[in-house]
Amino acid sequence: MTSTSSSPVSFVRAAVDAEIASFTERRRAQLLEIGAELAPVMEALEAMLAGGKRLRPAFCYWGWRGAGGAEVPGIYTAAASLEFLQACALIHDDVIDNSDTRRGLPATHKRLEALHRRSGWSGGAQGFGQGSAILIGDLCLAWSDEMFQGSELPLEALRAGRRPFDEMRTEVMAGQYLDMLEQVRGSESVEASLRVMHYKAAKYTIERPLHMGAALAGRSAELAGVYSDYGIALGIAFQLRDDVLGVFGDPEETGKPAGDDLREGKRTLLVAETLERATPADAAEFRRHLGDPHLTPETVEWMRALATECGALEACERRIDGYVAQATEALESPEVDDAARPALADLIVAATARKH
Amino acid sequence: MTSTSSSPVSFVRAAVDAEIASFTERRRAQLLEIGAELAPVMEALEAMLAGGKRLRPAFCYWGWRGAGGAEVPGIYTAAASLEFLQACALIHDDVIDNSDTRRGLPATHKRLEALHRRSGWSGGAQGFGQGSAILIGDLCLAWSDEMFQGSELPLEALRAGRRPFDEMRTEVMAGQYLDMLEQVRGSESVEASLRVMHYKAAKYTIERPLHMGAALAGRSAELAGVYSDYGIALGIAFQLRDDVLGVFGDPEETGKPAGDDLREGKRTLLVAETLERATPADAAEFRRHLGDPHLTPETVEWMRALATECGALEACERRIDGYVAQATEALESPEVDDAARPALADLIVAATARKH
Repeated sequence: MTSTSSSPVSFVRAAVDAEIASFTERRRAQLLEIGAELAPVMEALEAMLAGGKRLRPAFCYWGWRGAGGAEVPGIYTAAASLEFLQACALIHDDVIDNSDTRRGLPATHKRLEALHRRSGWSGGAQGFGQGSAILIGDLCLAWSDEMFQGSELPLEALRAGRRPFDEMRTEVMAGQYLDMLEQVRGSESVEASLRVMHYKAAKYTIERPLHMGAALAGRSAELAGVYSDYGIALGIAFQLRDDVLGVFGDPEETGKPAGDDLREGKRTLLVAETLERATPADAAEFRRHLGDPHLTPETVEWMRALATECGALEACERRIDGYVAQATEALESPEVDDAARPALADLIVAATARKH
Repeated sequence: MTSTSSSPVSFVRAAVDAEIASFTERRRAQLLEIGAELAPVMEALEAMLAGGKRLRPAFCYWGWRGAGGAEVPGIYTAAASLEFLQACALIHDDVIDNSDTRRGLPATHKRLEALHRRSGWSGGAQGFGQGSAILIGDLCLAWSDEMFQGSELPLEALRAGRRPFDEMRTEVMAGQYLDMLEQVRGSESVEASLRVMHYKAAKYTIERPLHMGAALAGRSAELAGVYSDYGIALGIAFQLRDDVLGVFGDPEETGKPAGDDLREGKRTLLVAETLERATPADAAEFRRHLGDPHLTPETVEWMRALATECGALEACERRIDGYVAQATEALESPEVDDAARPALADLIVAATARKH
């Protein structure tokens, strides 16, 4: 995602970073009081929290401003709490997918696995790494709602804001399970990938953070519909862009090896479109390579060419354009406060830009 | 734990069960609306929640009553939320320890692993089971605080009750990590097992639930100290009893194979005492068998005999008696409301009885 100093993401970012730093500082003291050996837990957690685009906090904040919410410190705390939820999702996701890296750095479980090896402890290093990462993710999940509930916003506002917060947590975990299910079922349908995108990405990344902002500002009734129209459309566009980048992206920009999604065998919409449009022989060959961890650069190139030539890439780009148009139209609603409309428009561009 | 219809555990149990059933019912509807394929997630979760002694809710409830809290429905909701936290802890613990069973039934990850096999899906069944169990545990953790915060108690009371609730979650996860650490370090010290017991069992199972009850009733200042004296002592006694039963318990009553903790290689205080008291040769042989998954009944018998003859069992029993006396003495404080004192005294017996 492009981010300049004046973008609506980076505007929120500094305040969210400060909230995370101050919350983490207090929790570090608590953990180290329990035991000095907990330092590596804290380091792994801080490394995970240091990265990320703060996209969910940005949508929560602008959802609040779009609902007429004032510029008060409490909204940044509530928004920042989403980063702990996201940290849990990523840490656990990496254990589930057995991913070695995250944003170009070792995944949390690999980090703790390395600590085990370095220390020459007994038992399996891999099991220790995975077990630790499960617990570190749990800590992040617990701290997420501790931080949300500790925001200096009126208790009634927090009660209203919890509804979308709670819905969102259930949805993202359900979405992750469905995603896992589609992988093991070898699902190839466009509908199946759209459903996973709906829950795992669109609602979680964009719609629900916006709903939280609106609910915290006491304006759910007026804005929930508008934010859903904007958020679901933009969320799917965002995920489709991510899928395209996962196959065609430049490693320098994505922080992942070229064609990483193909190696991982992700059943994305781009893959579904390719399998649907290619000749049976090409589809069979594509399917055979999909999920092969040892894919050569040449085969990645061949798979990219097939996705392009059969029209799947173009179909995804057309879908992205269509969803961007829907999100843009939704923003025209007079319910959205003028203070937020330009930022929400910029976020459409930021979330779907061809470079990350 | 013995439980008769009039015990302070069973008194709370029926109301807590009803709270869990009604909360679960609403969440089931939400999950099935997202996708009918989520039914097995819900079934696994309900199977886990069906068991258990509701010990933490009982301490939360009696902590509330001991602080003068009235008989209102909201306290049962807040107390019941602890069962979802505990479900998360157990589900994730079973993944971390790679345990096949829980309370005589398949562990959550084994349940989902079996679903994968039965369905003939692709990819690894074990990975699918573990991944699903991580997500199901996450759902339980999120639902725990959703339920707590949704209790029909005044918002100010909930804000006060959250403090011990939040502390507890951090402590139990930190305690689990330290426990894992002691295992891989092959720690044999009595101090190390006492520290793990302090965080993972005493504070989590007894002290913090009592603190929650007191804080919800607005009487933290008066009761926190008394409840800590009672709770930590009783919590350690409870864990020591559990450790003794893990080695000497009757499979019919514990729901686990005889000597299961020896097979798992748990570094309990009983083990530490045995290694400290036995002759070097016996200690070396004991150490060699500890953690051997294929221990024969004869070897289990030999290990039990050693723990008995070297005085380790007796030392544990003496410690239990000492802690029970401390807890009993703490209860004499005039700060504790008379309405709760008999129940809190009965809970000492229930938590440390020689049968579970």
